[in-house]
Amino acid sequence: MKVWLLDNGSIVIEHTQLLWNVPGPQVRIPVYSVLVESDDGLFLFDTGIDLDHMNRVLPFELPEQTPEQTIPAQLEACGFSVGDVTTLVNSHLHIDHVGGNKLFPGTRTVIHEKEVAQARDHEPFEFFGYSDKSWDCEGLNLETVTGDVELATGIFLYETPGHTVGHYSLLLKPDGDARPLLFAVDVAYTAAALEKGIQPGFHNNPSAGVRSIRRVKDLAAEHGAEIFYSHDMDAWHTYRHAPDCYEI
Amino acid sequence: MKVWLLDNGSIVIEHTQLLWNVPGPQVRIPVYSVLVESDDGLFLFDTGIDLDHMNRVLPFELPEQTPEQTIPAQLEACGFSVGDVTTLVNSHLHIDHVGGNKLFPGTRTVIHEKEVAQARDHEPFEFFGYSDKSWDCEGLNLETVTGDVELATGIFLYETPGHTVGHYSLLLKPDGDARPLLFAVDVAYTAAALEKGIQPGFHNNPSAGVRSIRRVKDLAAEHGAEIFYSHDMDAWHTYRHAPDCYEI
Repeated sequence: MKVWLLDNGSIVIEHTQLLWNVPGPQVRIPVYSVLVESDDGLFLFDTGIDLDHMNRVLPFELPEQTPEQTIPAQLEACGFSVGDVTTLVNSHLHIDHVGGNKLFPGTRTVIHEKEVAQARDHEPFEFFGYSDKSWDCEGLNLETVTGDVELATGIFLYETPGHTVGHYSLLLKPDGDARPLLFAVDVAYTAAALEKGIQPGFHNNPSAGVRSIRRVKDLAAEHGAEIFYSHDMDAWHTYRHAPDCYEI
Repeated sequence: MKVWLLDNGSIVIEHTQLLWNVPGPQVRIPVYSVLVESDDGLFLFDTGIDLDHMNRVLPFELPEQTPEQTIPAQLEACGFSVGDVTTLVNSHLHIDHVGGNKLFPGTRTVIHEKEVAQARDHEPFEFFGYSDKSWDCEGLNLETVTGDVELATGIFLYETPGHTVGHYSLLLKPDGDARPLLFAVDVAYTAAALEKGIQPGFHNNPSAGVRSIRRVKDLAAEHGAEIFYSHDMDAWHTYRHAPDCYEI
């Protein structure tokens, strides 16, 4: 199994979004997607931001995305094209995880059933999060799922709601002795946030979020997995970025 | 029915606590309790902050409370003593609403059943909110309730969860033509927050909070009530403070 982290640029958020109710200076956070090539196909997890949408609806988040940081450019850097992706999966449907979805009409797209329903009819306080509706496009080949899912050999989705109602974390488990990779996604944005048990300031159900933080820690311990953080700039600088990859 | 607002001092909070996820400067907010004299007895709703607890556990909230702003001093200013209170009610059990509870051992104390359970076994993120445990004292004469409650003639508690699981708002409805008074308490801290539908940054269940904001607006419309805001310094300056009172 080969795993690439696709750089999709960055945005700026309030410190209290990074760490709920903890004041501090604004912080620029990375946005990225995960590409997995396995014997079962080419899987893309999340699709980053759409720069036009961000500049139109959330310009105060000062989005940055070069032409090289778009999904097509990142796929190309890894030797693939958009048409090579066999399955698209969204951890959840917030703006910074769906920006490139509209590039994949017809592609099998796996999303939690509750997440789809919520994104289409969300709470008022979720307006900005779900403001990019372009994932819900013509040609959408949607496959809704619930519960934990073994998507393909060694590719697992674990329910981790709280940040959103249908949030999934991703575990990549190799056949051999390599260390599994656990993408916690937005259960906690940074290593410090997970360590301290502090969830993001944007959330749907913080009590569920507490249980999901525990679940991510338990999964990492159970599988001996390395946790990858979704929006941790320090951690991001230590990761391999596409076209470099992890082989597990 | 005579209604006094008892000044219990003030604290400083982050702007994102006043308005969830909305950045801005820190703000000093008032803390107060409500005393109601009716034919059915003398009712005290909430008991403000305990200055010692605040200075010990949350000194960063820069609590201010003069000797004249304690519950005994405020009661005395209205011509009463602690022993005159026949029923104590807590809207919820956060630090800034229970500070004087320990002064009332033996006094009938009405609190939502879920609120008592949650305060005794809360989520990690509710630590500061429920850190003053002195309400749970020896001699506590607790009467837990659920659902909407007509506590006495014209004195109504309405379930408005979200900020906390067992949060009550208070409606005082006169017999005659006077305008009813609706104490929304912490459903939304300020007039602007209620108007915009933005709940406090500290909350247990924001989806429930959305419904409670709607409920407060509906109750105010249904009863033609004047809404009193719990932590709105501008509004507070326009209210009558004890020993002045509202006669309804």
